[in-house]
Amino acid sequence: ARRGFPEVIYGPGKTTAQIREIFTRLARRNANVLCTRTDEAAHLAVREALPDDARAALFFDEAAGLLGLRRDARLRQRGTILVLSAGTSDQKVANEAQRCAEVMGNPVERLADVGVAGLHRLLAELPTLERASVIICVAGFEAALPSVVAGLVHCPVIAVPTSTGYGASFEGLSALLSCLTSCAAGVLTVNIDNGFGAAYAATLINRVGGEAEDSA
Amino acid sequence: ARRGFPEVIYGPGKTTAQIREIFTRLARRNANVLCTRTDEAAHLAVREALPDDARAALFFDEAAGLLGLRRDARLRQRGTILVLSAGTSDQKVANEAQRCAEVMGNPVERLADVGVAGLHRLLAELPTLERASVIICVAGFEAALPSVVAGLVHCPVIAVPTSTGYGASFEGLSALLSCLTSCAAGVLTVNIDNGFGAAYAATLINRVGGEAEDSA
Amino acid sequence: ARRGFPEVIYGPGKTTAQIREIFTRLARRNANVLCTRTDEAAHLAVREALPDDARAALFFDEAAGLLGLRRDARLRQRGTILVLSAGTSDQKVANEAQRCAEVMGNPVERLADVGVAGLHRLLAELPTLERASVIICVAGFEAALPSVVAGLVHCPVIAVPTSTGYGASFEGLSALLSCLTSCAAGVLTVNIDNGFGAAYAATLINRVGGEAEDSA
Amino acid sequence: ARRGFPEVIYGPGKTTAQIREIFTRLARRNANVLCTRTDEAAHLAVREALPDDARAALFFDEAAGLLGLRRDARLRQRGTILVLSAGTSDQKVANEAQRCAEVMGNPVERLADVGVAGLHRLLAELPTLERASVIICVAGFEAALPSVVAGLVHCPVIAVPTSTGYGASFEGLSALLSCLTSCAAGVLTVNIDNGFGAAYAATLINRVGGEAEDSA
Amino acid sequence: ARRGFPEVIYGPGKTTAQIREIFTRLARRNANVLCTRTDEAAHLAVREALPDDARAALFFDEAAGLLGLRRDARLRQRGTILVLSAGTSDQKVANEAQRCAEVMGNPVERLADVGVAGLHRLLAELPTLERASVIICVAGFEAALPSVVAGLVHCPVIAVPTSTGYGASFEGLSALLSCLTSCAAGVLTVNIDNGFGAAYAATLINRVGGEAEDSA
Amino acid sequence: ARRGFPEVIYGPGKTTAQIREIFTRLARRNANVLCTRTDEAAHLAVREALPDDARAALFFDEAAGLLGLRRDARLRQRGTILVLSAGTSDQKVANEAQRCAEVMGNPVERLADVGVAGLHRLLAELPTLERASVIICVAGFEAALPSVVAGLVHCPVIAVPTSTGYGASFEGLSALLSCLTSCAAGVLTVNIDNGFGAAYAATLINRVGGEAEDSA
Amino acid sequence: ARRGFPEVIYGPGKTTAQIREIFTRLARRNANVLCTRTDEAAHLAVREALPDDARAALFFDEAAGLLGLRRDARLRQRGTILVLSAGTSDQKVANEAQRCAEVMGNPVERLADVGVAGLHRLLAELPTLERASVIICVAGFEAALPSVVAGLVHCPVIAVPTSTGYGASFEGLSALLSCLTSCAAGVLTVNIDNGFGAAYAATLINRVGGEAEDSA
Amino acid sequence: ARRGFPEVIYGPGKTTAQIREIFTRLARRNANVLCTRTDEAAHLAVREALPDDARAALFFDEAAGLLGLRRDARLRQRGTILVLSAGTSDQKVANEAQRCAEVMGNPVERLADVGVAGLHRLLAELPTLERASVIICVAGFEAALPSVVAGLVHCPVIAVPTSTGYGASFEGLSALLSCLTSCAAGVLTVNIDNGFGAAYAATLINRVGGEAEDSA
Ligand SMILES: Nc1ncnc2c1ncn2[C@@H]1O[C@H](COP(=O)(O)O)[C@@H](O)[C@H]1O
Ligand SMILES: Nc1ncnc2c1ncn2[C@@H]1O[C@H](COP(=O)(O)O)[C@@H](O)[C@H]1O
Ligand SMILES: Nc1ncnc2c1ncn2[C@@H]1O[C@H](COP(=O)(O)O)[C@@H](O)[C@H]1O
Ligand SMILES: Nc1ncnc2c1ncn2[C@@H]1O[C@H](COP(=O)(O)O)[C@@H](O)[C@H]1O
Ligand SMILES: [Mg+2]
Ligand SMILES: [Mg+2]
Ligand SMILES: [Mg+2]
Ligand SMILES: [Mg+2]
Ligand SMILES: [Mg+2]
Ligand SMILES: [Mg+2]
Ligand SMILES: [Mg+2]
Ligand SMILES: [Mg+2]
Repeated sequence: ARRGFPEVIYGPGKTTAQIREIFTRLARRNANVLCTRTDEAAHLAVREALPDDARAALFFDEAAGLLGLRRDARLRQRGTILVLSAGTSDQKVANEAQRCAEVMGNPVERLADVGVAGLHRLLAELPTLERASVIICVAGFEAALPSVVAGLVHCPVIAVPTSTGYGASFEGLSALLSCLTSCAAGVLTVNIDNGFGAAYAATLINRVGGEAEDSA
Repeated sequence: ARRGFPEVIYGPGKTTAQIREIFTRLARRNANVLCTRTDEAAHLAVREALPDDARAALFFDEAAGLLGLRRDARLRQRGTILVLSAGTSDQKVANEAQRCAEVMGNPVERLADVGVAGLHRLLAELPTLERASVIICVAGFEAALPSVVAGLVHCPVIAVPTSTGYGASFEGLSALLSCLTSCAAGVLTVNIDNGFGAAYAATLINRVGGEAEDSA
Repeated sequence: ARRGFPEVIYGPGKTTAQIREIFTRLARRNANVLCTRTDEAAHLAVREALPDDARAALFFDEAAGLLGLRRDARLRQRGTILVLSAGTSDQKVANEAQRCAEVMGNPVERLADVGVAGLHRLLAELPTLERASVIICVAGFEAALPSVVAGLVHCPVIAVPTSTGYGASFEGLSALLSCLTSCAAGVLTVNIDNGFGAAYAATLINRVGGEAEDSA
Repeated sequence: ARRGFPEVIYGPGKTTAQIREIFTRLARRNANVLCTRTDEAAHLAVREALPDDARAALFFDEAAGLLGLRRDARLRQRGTILVLSAGTSDQKVANEAQRCAEVMGNPVERLADVGVAGLHRLLAELPTLERASVIICVAGFEAALPSVVAGLVHCPVIAVPTSTGYGASFEGLSALLSCLTSCAAGVLTVNIDNGFGAAYAATLINRVGGEAEDSA
Repeated sequence: ARRGFPEVIYGPGKTTAQIREIFTRLARRNANVLCTRTDEAAHLAVREALPDDARAALFFDEAAGLLGLRRDARLRQRGTILVLSAGTSDQKVANEAQRCAEVMGNPVERLADVGVAGLHRLLAELPTLERASVIICVAGFEAALPSVVAGLVHCPVIAVPTSTGYGASFEGLSALLSCLTSCAAGVLTVNIDNGFGAAYAATLINRVGGEAEDSA
Repeated sequence: ARRGFPEVIYGPGKTTAQIREIFTRLARRNANVLCTRTDEAAHLAVREALPDDARAALFFDEAAGLLGLRRDARLRQRGTILVLSAGTSDQKVANEAQRCAEVMGNPVERLADVGVAGLHRLLAELPTLERASVIICVAGFEAALPSVVAGLVHCPVIAVPTSTGYGASFEGLSALLSCLTSCAAGVLTVNIDNGFGAAYAATLINRVGGEAEDSA
Repeated sequence: ARRGFPEVIYGPGKTTAQIREIFTRLARRNANVLCTRTDEAAHLAVREALPDDARAALFFDEAAGLLGLRRDARLRQRGTILVLSAGTSDQKVANEAQRCAEVMGNPVERLADVGVAGLHRLLAELPTLERASVIICVAGFEAALPSVVAGLVHCPVIAVPTSTGYGASFEGLSALLSCLTSCAAGVLTVNIDNGFGAAYAATLINRVGGEAEDSA
Repeated sequence: ARRGFPEVIYGPGKTTAQIREIFTRLARRNANVLCTRTDEAAHLAVREALPDDARAALFFDEAAGLLGLRRDARLRQRGTILVLSAGTSDQKVANEAQRCAEVMGNPVERLADVGVAGLHRLLAELPTLERASVIICVAGFEAALPSVVAGLVHCPVIAVPTSTGYGASFEGLSALLSCLTSCAAGVLTVNIDNGFGAAYAATLINRVGGEAEDSA
């Protein structure tokens, strides 16, 4: 992994035993480790296999399927990453983005329930939006949020379309096409439901701004 | 045609001669006639064929390809239909909606250039939005406008996705899916670029509110 | 919620505990509450949590996954919303539309089994069709019903394509495209299986016609 | 070619010279020849190349791009093939079906302008529908016609979806999916715009009923 | 149901209790009844509910999910319907077609395992192909069979694309598009996996050839 | 370019001047050069720019848009590449494959008009098929040919789906999916219309068989 | 089966009993047998049914669902087939390719974890790549590997897109389109997840190079 | 426009007269102006309308359709934006990205012809890659470049899929899906052919790194 980045494992296609083995091996050499899209069984197996001191720094977000070890909690970047989401069903992807961004050493803020159908909630948070150095917008259905947000701020907006929704959402296709065709300049898109990828790219962007003093 | 409605011809697949013949025939029995998706050639042919008194009431919107005869300009409905659009490239569809709604006897208002990437323009028009009885939202690219508008008003919103945009717009697919999956309740969708259909349905909705006094 | 409208919760992505909490909280302030796309477990949890007097007004439609509280049963709108469906497999979406429209204060009529392959059944109901102020057409497979109905009536028709059917139905895509490209003017489309959205929009349309005397 | 069938050439990809050569060569050995999807240039080249006696039996339908030679006009089948269409823009495909069916030796009837949005026109023609042995339904946009027709008759219905329409018609996809998912049993589908294929299959079906006396 | 046709129930969306009730009710008035896409539970419920004499004529094809009652086994049509299939995984659809065609009063023949990758098996059955009055070709994956068969015979070929296959089969899309774009004239297509629809249409075609003597 | 391979230029996006410059530059160092998807203008420009001795070895296939220089005509491979096609409209892609394979130093055979709807033509050529070391099958519409051919031979079959066909051919999608889902083992697929790519891969395969004596 | 090839059964759509019966029957006449896409139940049934001497040569790869009998382990081809894969989730398809290629008598090498995001791993294996006569590249997500590999080697590359990935991977569509549109000449594509098909075609290609001495 | 950003006009849907009027009006108030996707006619009209001093700073890139005015050429950002492309046909999009990035005040570097099929060219430029603060990767066909590049560098990579390619490229869909599903973390995607959007977002990212001294 790159300097200051956690090691990351991609869960699908790996058995519980494989995940325990890889995770604990990486944990020996790295302060921080992430495993995305895994499950409670892997969590328990890893928990049991870790030494006592590491165990305390292990967390598992069940909805997101995110297993993480965060022993080094230094803030390495100066700028704040803001994670936005609208509906409840997008929260697990927003959680993935938030937790990953934290483990990657960023100051992170989070706003939920700021959908465009209730614009006042979003507009009331303008100061929060304005102090972010990068914004991650998690949005399903018609994913109008990234366009509206990018129109309000001066920083890069990473749009994470989600597979929530039904019918013409077509498993996130509707949200994805919206993000890609946003009429507001400054929107960048990652794969459907890819909270991890958004956090990773946001961190890279954040690092363009230089390291935090705390990060040494 | 139903009481108070113009007769409507669908241009594609008809020759100039056919359009002239149908249009002038219908114009003999009807005060108002519309021909959608036709061209300047048909316009000229119809213009020449019409008697002098009708000619003055003939109009042609070249961008929209809309040819219309409006000899009866009574306002038959009470409520106002508001036609909104964001970008320049959506204007021809918005024009089709506006002109059709007028010929169908509705009070019509029009706001252009109110895209979601510049929210202040839209928010400054809240009073206009609030006095409409139906709103037609013409929107291409990611078509976020209908969601935002439906969140601001209490009347039905008819979304007209347009084929403007490029790449992942896929000839209006992106905008269409957005309209259909809007997270804001109260959005109804018509076919891509179908300004006429939006005006027609808006008129039917407007009529639920009863006829104007002027309409007898 | 807007005046006279129930509060509405979207079930997917929420735990049973969350739904119980939100539903009972909203029920304290609102006479009517709806939760769409939820399940029997949430129903039971809410039922147990509600005070005795509210419990009697709680209903659950299992096929539709619709949980509702209807303590205020006043008819707020004058016009009648007619809900039509063809096959058995469309009934759960039609149920959602019907129940939602009722809870929103509309007089509602319902006709099932009026598919276009047996036109006589539909034609025998012409008087029912004609007295509606808005019609909701629930239709799967090739969704020919909205076109036929819109050709027979003078009121707006809201088409709800459904995901029933197999093969080239492609989870409702066939029905959706049919509704959108209807050759009959006056058809407005909502998302696949979106009975709630159809009822909501139908209510907005119905309100253009003014409030019922009973509604005060 | 099979007994009583014309020889058929598929125009696309062939030069005018090739079409003239193939057409005139086939015309030497066959009373009837068809070339589909060709143009006026090929028509003129063939016309010039044919001997005088053949020339009189040559026809060209420009809209359909169908070039045909019909020197043997015997009616070989007993049953009648009925060709139906709704809008003007479907007429060229209906023409292709009709002319091909005629050249293949079938009694053919034709009804245009019988769309489902104006059901009375169609219902007024019930006797015509009932005396057909096979019906070819040419339909664009949402292609509701085949379903309605198949519900009214007892004979096979061949649906020809057309590429007419715009937006969500997606070049005939909407009509195609409708035909394939028709809720009315007895509908068989051919390729988009394939009037020739419909006529060919209708003729095969018609021949199951035995040959006409005239056909010897 | 039309003369000589069984009544048909479409299983999906109906509860076991509903199917038992409809099936037994129809069985009282009709010698033959079919219920497609149902399951063993419905089968057992119907079996128990039927009177002893009917029970003997009840059959259930589990793979096809087809429940049928065939008390009238007269052959009403003269021509033979031939049902072809290639791979094992297409057999359940071919079964549906065969059993439905039988219950509809047709002489039926069946050939399995005649895929185009082993052409000799198919060519060895040329006499069987030639004596059919209609052929139903059930084919998944690339569905090359209908084209090859239609090139060998002089009767109509009904292609039933199936959802078997994986990857680029896209749930039957590959097979469906193949059937629709067959370069061999005389191929007619029904919905993916629609063995019932193929049998129904084949019966209508077969009836163009007149009734069998046995059928009175 | 690899040993014995011509240099290849991809025409689209290049101006005539650029193509002339690149082509003539490459021709100075290479005996053989190919430029795919170019036009007559580029051909003329290159022809004029080449020295007299090279000019004689220049060829241009207009339908294929293939411009080639073949000064070294040695046969470098032993095995024969057989190029098959069915309809006229596939010939330009087959031409591209054939000419490219020749310039790449392979013995090449060509069979046109061997579609599956007329199986006898293909079966009559079995000996030709059997002596090939690789077969390139060019096929549009439903592209059944690769499956049938792969079932008849023991060598690799490269399928080139073409964009010929209309309607449900969807610009080659139907043919492409057919090739990919072929039920016959041994079929390998290249991009739609990619005759060049098929020839290139066939040459690589042919080289596994070792070099011809002539090739030194 | 062709000389030296195992007999192959396609598992889906067959019952455990059918697979046991077919497998054991084929095993009587053939040294080597393969059954793809089957399960542990079929494995156990076959294992029990086989005679003792065969049982030792039976293997089952659970992840791949591949059941195989390999009693004849002679290397029939001279060239080596190299199987490459990147991520863990592609391993089951790579396994299928590897095991099938072995049973078909090829020398096989295998490299896992050589994704393009870590180019050094791949570049370190250049000698392995260069000694292969055919390379099978198994790749999911954006499937960049075949392009990079084909640019490094002089032998044919068979790309096997996999259905791994999520979101815009669309069940392998993304990987499939990448393989088909590879900018590197020499890439041939098989169906998504089709490890068997890749092995089969690679074997055919390998045989162009002639048989190994051991193979008699 | 935001501080230091040029004003930007989107050309499509605007007449030459409109573009001239808007462009010259904006040029009065802004040092820098851009108009994307316009044509030579608009260029000439604007050129004529501009005052002499502005005219010298006007440029037009015909392939990209980009018209720009750059009177303020200060470098406002410190970091370098690197624009990469592979094939000739991607150059016009890369040009758009480069020119826009320059007008937005960034130091810009450009590398063309670094496709993955010739990896050595790319690897030879590692130092150039490493000194960039953001990289814009323009890639058509299978768009493997962003994955390979993101694996080599530590900065954010903006992928611009292009509509170049044919067949299964499906107007850029293949490239788009590749970019979105890149297995290399750190890739962000914009719309197909959206060079402008990539430059805009890259500039926002670059500004996170603070302003250049020259920029005041
Ligand atoms: N949810 C995810 N989506 C995409 N890529 C991921 C995800 N989680 C992890 N990765 C990537 O997968 C790599 C690890 O893959 P693996 O070695 O298969 O576990 C990491 O370096 C990440 O870049
Ligand atoms: N742009 C349009 N989109 C959809 N339907 C239309 C359009 N213009 C006209 N129509 C409908 O087409 C009918 C006339 O069709 P026709 O008789 O073919 O001219 C009218 O009654 C309208 O309902
Ligand atoms: N598998 C099937 N696919 C399509 N239509 C069917 C199928 N099975 C039955 N049907 C049709 O469905 C009708 C009965 O529908 P229902 O009244 O909902 O049971 C029958 O008349 C048939 O025309
Ligand atoms: N028709 C074609 N389809 C795909 N790739 C091609 C085609 N023609 C040429 N190429 C490839 O494009 C490369 C040359 O690209 P360029 O340098 O842009 O001219 C050659 O090395 C070929 O591998
Ligand atoms: Mg912004
Ligand atoms: Mg609203
Ligand atoms: Mg109507
Ligand atoms: Mg019928
Ligand atoms: Mg035939
Ligand atoms: Mg073979
Ligand atoms: Mg190579
Ligand atoms: Mg990187």
